[in-house]
Amino acid sequence: MNLWDGVDVLVSEVGPRDGLQSITPIMPTEAKLRWIGALVEAGVREVEAGSFVPAHVVPQLADTAEVVRTLKRCHPGLHVAALVPNARGARAALEAGADKITLPLSASETHSLRNLRRTHAQVLDEVRAIAELLSRAGPNRPVFEGAVSTAFGCTLEGPVPEARVVALAERLVALGCDEVSLSDTTGYANPAQVRRLVKAVQAAVGPERMTGLHLHNTRGLGLANVLAGLEEGVRTFDASQGGLGGCPFAPGASGNVVTEDLVFMLEAMGLKTGIDLDRLLAARRILAEALPTEPLYGFLAEAGLPLGFRQAA
Amino acid sequence: MNLWDGVDVLVSEVGPRDGLQSITPIMPTEAKLRWIGALVEAGVREVEAGSFVPAHVVPQLADTAEVVRTLKRCHPGLHVAALVPNARGARAALEAGADKITLPLSASETHSLRNLRRTHAQVLDEVRAIAELLSRAGPNRPVFEGAVSTAFGCTLEGPVPEARVVALAERLVALGCDEVSLSDTTGYANPAQVRRLVKAVQAAVGPERMTGLHLHNTRGLGLANVLAGLEEGVRTFDASQGGLGGCPFAPGASGNVVTEDLVFMLEAMGLKTGIDLDRLLAARRILAEALPTEPLYGFLAEAGLPLGFRQAA
Repeated sequence: MNLWDGVDVLVSEVGPRDGLQSITPIMPTEAKLRWIGALVEAGVREVEAGSFVPAHVVPQLADTAEVVRTLKRCHPGLHVAALVPNARGARAALEAGADKITLPLSASETHSLRNLRRTHAQVLDEVRAIAELLSRAGPNRPVFEGAVSTAFGCTLEGPVPEARVVALAERLVALGCDEVSLSDTTGYANPAQVRRLVKAVQAAVGPERMTGLHLHNTRGLGLANVLAGLEEGVRTFDASQGGLGGCPFAPGASGNVVTEDLVFMLEAMGLKTGIDLDRLLAARRILAEALPTEPLYGFLAEAGLPLGFRQAA
Repeated sequence: MNLWDGVDVLVSEVGPRDGLQSITPIMPTEAKLRWIGALVEAGVREVEAGSFVPAHVVPQLADTAEVVRTLKRCHPGLHVAALVPNARGARAALEAGADKITLPLSASETHSLRNLRRTHAQVLDEVRAIAELLSRAGPNRPVFEGAVSTAFGCTLEGPVPEARVVALAERLVALGCDEVSLSDTTGYANPAQVRRLVKAVQAAVGPERMTGLHLHNTRGLGLANVLAGLEEGVRTFDASQGGLGGCPFAPGASGNVVTEDLVFMLEAMGLKTGIDLDRLLAARRILAEALPTEPLYGFLAEAGLPLGFRQAA
């Protein structure tokens, strides 16, 4: 099955990476695979399975290579994505068989230094090295995505100039990224800004290369921002089951857009995601059992589906 | 000051009515007035102060006449709205000096019978009687709003035909309502439906009479639905401070759209509400002190404003 068969909008599940990386209890590999298996069962087409960072930096994701390998073996149709901070990580992702590798380039250089300990120029050097690596990887090589993070503002620098985001997106494509996406790492985005920035990046790199949005719900605007992106033609949205990754000091303030709520919104609007909501809620219960001490967020799981609600086949 | 001076979008605070009516602890009149005073201080222009229903039906709102009268005396510039279930309530609202009276007509007749113990025909008779009453009330008579509730679906009937909503909106205007609004009483709405229904009602009654949206956040789509309404030209949105009125059985699932989050979204988009966010958060703290056992919802109050965020003057 092609990734996009019968699907209007691709909901890319990033919980196993972005969600898990910010929580303390380590989720055993077996539990991750059971959870992701349930997501696949629900119809999820793409999962960001982990991050190829040194194990001592993010112990939670030390098993990323094993998770990627097992997923490709057990669910050959699943599009398995992985984050990589540099060329070394990209090599590991390639070896494990990832279908997509995502390199984050923080528009805020202060954040880039904190996050990857690299300046913009240094990260762009890694992009060049990864493109070079992939050019030798044959026809089935993974998709290479450059993700401009803190694109809508930074908790360290404050507002981020839109021209800088556009320029970085252009550089990513010029140096060999197949696609660029924009990440609201800090939950600062608003719908007007999403529209403006998506349009500007589409104009700069071509709409077919400006593919995805990674939005957080920190200030409750996650789904409104998705709507703004949708209306500008974006068709791939990251989301995290149970809003996993929400700041523990902000009850109710989930991290990523909650997958269940996003899928509900899209399906209610008549947009096909390929995901069955009842099964998605079943996967959430598996996640909840695996992480009994972590709060899960989201409205749909509490409120349930509207009476008489039916998903398109 | 005119209600709309310097304001792009009117955020109408319905917490004192829709919020309080669904919670158990009775808020003393003094506390209500202190809270609403803080909202006025923050720049809130319109408040739904209560409901003219028999005291034994909603004890929480038994002081509505006193609240309306006091607000008009202490805050002459404030636009004071009140809900009325019938002509008797409208007479009381008129006597108290309300600036706007809102009559709910539930698109679901099952819900209408439960809520007002009246069929559609019986409610429309009340509309006729209220229009007659107001026609004799002189030039400063209150605005008469007909609110089509359960317009996006009903927890008792399920989906509600859009043609029925449009027909009821037309009847309300034909019988004398100055304005109609649409209420997502059940939190069933999605952005595509909001667009469709707003357009259809605008076409039927004229865009200048299709004024407001009353949206709930039960399934997390509140602000996305606001955005859809905004894009169709709606400029008045109800909201409730702290999402007051949320179902106690659904943690995190607030009732009404949360005022703080809505004002933040609008101001971040560059739309003026006339409301100062810091003062609005101060009013929320006054509310929290007055209702120590009630959970308050919303993301902004937990997450805070983005670094470097500035409201337009």
